[in-house]
Parts: sequence; C-alpha cells; structure tokens
Amino acid sequence: MVEDWEVLERRLVFRHRRWVSLYEEDVRLPDGTVVEGYLTAEAPSGTMVVGLTDEEEVVVLRGYRHGPRAVTYSLPGGGLDDGEDPLVGARRELLEETGFAGGEWTLLGEFTHSANRGMGTAHLYLARGVRRVARPESGDLEATEVELRPLDALLAEVFAGNVHVFKEAGALALAAVALRAGG
Amino acid sequence: MVEDWEVLERRLVFRHRRWVSLYEEDVRLPDGTVVEGYLTAEAPSGTMVVGLTDEEEVVVLRGYRHGPRAVTYSLPGGGLDDGEDPLVGARRELLEETGFAGGEWTLLGEFTHSANRGMGTAHLYLARGVRRVARPESGDLEATEVELRPLDALLAEVFAGNVHVFKEAGALALAAVALRAGG
Repeated sequence: MVEDWEVLERRLVFRHRRWVSLYEEDVRLPDGTVVEGYLTAEAPSGTMVVGLTDEEEVVVLRGYRHGPRAVTYSLPGGGLDDGEDPLVGARRELLEETGFAGGEWTLLGEFTHSANRGMGTAHLYLARGVRRVARPESGDLEATEVELRPLDALLAEVFAGNVHVFKEAGALALAAVALRAGG
Repeated sequence: MVEDWEVLERRLVFRHRRWVSLYEEDVRLPDGTVVEGYLTAEAPSGTMVVGLTDEEEVVVLRGYRHGPRAVTYSLPGGGLDDGEDPLVGARRELLEETGFAGGEWTLLGEFTHSANRGMGTAHLYLARGVRRVARPESGDLEATEVELRPLDALLAEVFAGNVHVFKEAGALALAAVALRAGG
C-alpha cells in the first residue's frame, strides 16, 4: 500500500520575485522515518500550446533561450495571470507570441514539473485549426521568430538534438500521440 | 538573425546541498538592453529510462511522489554520480530501482529542464528487451512498486490524468514516437 508523506513543518528558504519560492520541509514517511529539510518549490502555473494550422503545421517559435544557452525551438505559452483561467491564458499567450488564434482546443494534460520538488502546474493544450490573425507582440525578452513546421519534421528535429528543452520535446510527442489516437 | 545573450555578471543567491544552485545574472540582450538579476539554476544532470521487456511492456514505478503530492507513475532514473557516464548511470538506476537490466539501449535525447532557467541536463534512454535480474534496491525515500504495463496503456493513463509529472508523460510519448518511427 502506498501512503502519502506527512508534512510536519515547512520553512521558506528562498524567494525570487514572483518566479520561484523554495521551501525546506520536514516530512514523515509512511514507515515513520522523519526526513528534515526536504526541498520543495513553488512557481507560477503556466500553459503550453501545440497549435496546428489547417495545413497540419505547428506554430513554433525559434530563437535563443537562456536556459539551454542555445538557439532552439519553443512552443508558445507562459505564466498565467492571477486567477486567469488556463484556457484563456493559453489562448492569450498563443496570440501574443505568435499572432495565431481560433481553432478547436483540447486539454492534453495538467502536469507538475518535478516529481520531487513540485514547481507549479503546466497546462498543455492542443489547438487544431489555428489561423494567423495579428502580428506577434509578446513583450518577452527573447527575440524569436514564428515558424510553421510539420509536426513530423519537428519530431525529427527532436531526435536530431535540435530541440533543447524537455518540455517542448515532450509536448510535441504528446501531441503526436494524441493526434494518432484521435485518428 | 538570432544572437546569444551576453552574461555580464553572475551571483550565487541560493544553494541547497548538492541539489540546486540559483544565480542572478545581469545579461545584455542582442539589442543592447541590460537586464539585471535574471534567475538561472544549476542542478545535477540525470537520466530517465523507458525500459521495454520482450513482451513490449514498460517497466514503471508506482508510488507517492512529493512533487505532485499524489500517487503516480514514475520512470526509473536519477542523478548521475560525479563523472559518471550517462549510459552507465541510466543502467545503474534501472537496476537499482527496478531490478531490470540488459537490452538494447538508444539515447532519445539530452534536454535542459527549463527554457528560461536551465536546471541540468536530462539524458533520456529507450532500452528494448530488458529483463528482471535482481530485486530492486533503490535506497530512495519513496516506497514504490515496480509494475509492467503496455506502453499504450500508460499513454492512456497520461491522457486520463493519472501521470502527474510532465517528464514522465513526455518521456513515454517520446518513446512511443521513436518506436513508431523505428518500425
């Protein structure tokens, strides 16, 4: 039988603006063992969008990202505003970052980032039939370019090592599996 | 044209044992703008294994994970020891956590965790034809059970909301796409 850990005490040990709060937790395991100072994290929840045009091309961003310190493909998405509905936030990010809107939206899943630490929830959407309606105006620091690429070509880029961030690679693969399952 | 950011200064602002080090960086963007205190993170690199038996079942762990605070499926894997080759570390983790070994191993990709922050590299492997050779002895805090499940059944669990961590969901989908592409 699998049981939860009991949190005995929780101490904020670091906060960086609104981006991340780190806690040390003293936890009691199901066998009674007490572990002191287990590290957990809170971060704003966010969205990620695999947007497909009627021509079955994915709306992707290409540009420098400071995490991998490389030029890579990214998917549109970002942090939710306070109290914002995830679907509303996802549509807002797609429009701001790529200028695309519309389409039929499906929630593929809601995931925690880290099995050990937590780190906020990622809401992953598949949007089929999106169309260009405006110019991108993300306001992000990154100078990215919007590209349209077939999903299979992007998956080939993943396996060629040209998608440097796990979330993007995983999201593209999840979209491919969902599309295959859906016919 | 896409250019890199230049790091002007980097300050360690938080460290938790060997698990995470956070830095604030002052960076200069390609347009000359200087951004102060951009948050980046370093964490140990690790491995993740989608191990398939000859019966095409995935070796998964099921148990409570403190990140999502839920009972969920996990994949074997974990942090690399100092200087350890990623493939050696991946085989070690599979054996320790599940008791499985052998098989043909393929590197599916090496990914940074966060597009903005960094956070170490995840080495994702597909291992085909693994076999049970020992009892699991992970030494991890979590009380997990080893299960064998068909990949399609696990992907159905993902879309049913029963895989709570993005890495596991993405890794399963990446393995499915790789297997499909490989015939």
